[in-house]
Amino acid sequence: MTDSHLKEVGIGSELLFKGKFLHAKCDTVRLPDGKTATREYVIHPGAVVVIPLLDDGQVVLERQYRYPVAQVITEFPAGKLDAGEEPLVCGQRELLEETGYTAAEWGYAGKMHLAVAYSTEVIHVYFARGLSLGERQLDQGEFLDVFTATVDDLMGWCRDGTVTDAKTLACTLWLQNVLSGAWSLDWQRAGDVSST
Amino acid sequence: MTDSHLKEVGIGSELLFKGKFLHAKCDTVRLPDGKTATREYVIHPGAVVVIPLLDDGQVVLERQYRYPVAQVITEFPAGKLDAGEEPLVCGQRELLEETGYTAAEWGYAGKMHLAVAYSTEVIHVYFARGLSLGERQLDQGEFLDVFTATVDDLMGWCRDGTVTDAKTLACTLWLQNVLSGAWSLDWQRAGDVSST
Repeated sequence: MTDSHLKEVGIGSELLFKGKFLHAKCDTVRLPDGKTATREYVIHPGAVVVIPLLDDGQVVLERQYRYPVAQVITEFPAGKLDAGEEPLVCGQRELLEETGYTAAEWGYAGKMHLAVAYSTEVIHVYFARGLSLGERQLDQGEFLDVFTATVDDLMGWCRDGTVTDAKTLACTLWLQNVLSGAWSLDWQRAGDVSST
Repeated sequence: MTDSHLKEVGIGSELLFKGKFLHAKCDTVRLPDGKTATREYVIHPGAVVVIPLLDDGQVVLERQYRYPVAQVITEFPAGKLDAGEEPLVCGQRELLEETGYTAAEWGYAGKMHLAVAYSTEVIHVYFARGLSLGERQLDQGEFLDVFTATVDDLMGWCRDGTVTDAKTLACTLWLQNVLSGAWSLDWQRAGDVSST
């Protein structure tokens, strides 16, 4: 099936603004019926989220104040890709920086698009296991708590509204199905980071 | 436990820009250590996503070209809140406009925050059942395909990367656990829309 009856084609683009963090564009597009419209969206470098599995079956989570939603959010460790950075390398870096953990094995689950209406953001989802705890190395101005929880607790928090972060809810779908054996992962040793 | 060691306090705010759709601000915040930083974020009116359950056990999905990610995305029906609109009323409106379905019963699952690092967006998640099909009423310039799928197919697409939309993955976590009986919903008749 062709998607030509759905596709929008960019015919012009202008910078909406470029902040320190946010960078947005406004493109003019040709709609499937030949008319034109504008699409405003945020340019994002992409990100990685990590589902860290401890040997005792618990997972590693963070609590971080998220200013746009004005509350402390419970989420899996995540961070933006540096320019040219491989997603797996980013996941290893962010896990270490934010939580102090390094992992012996990594499993790539897949990618998600976070806000398809107005952001280019893609988040790569990794599982990590064989964890050992060292010193975390938070960026300056970064404040977050690291804690561990059982998967039952996490599932309860997704149901009762304690966990509301979309990427963490999506990761929990993966977690539930990997742990049940319904979905499988291709695990690789941490040293073998050339392919993702 | 107090969260004062995490909390950021706004001490200034300026408009980054106001487009037709996107509206962004840059706030200056005081960090937990007393230093200051800036936070750039998109102001969003909030949204609703609907998980429509057909009597034969299938779900209703959409395929829509999402310009920021330059591809057709498979997702549950969703849309932005109009000014002052109740989330349930928005869900009923969007389901009808985009798919042509009306539902006899609605169940509120909860809310998710879509992009906590840079958007205020909250999405309310509803289940809908007792569906009957009428005429859809797409907004001008809106192009999307509506189709039905088994839950097994949907789960397979979440695993194999066909479904990458974060809100749809999060909804699928809810769907899996409601259908298994692990999570319950408080269903209400469509006429009784005063409370959400």
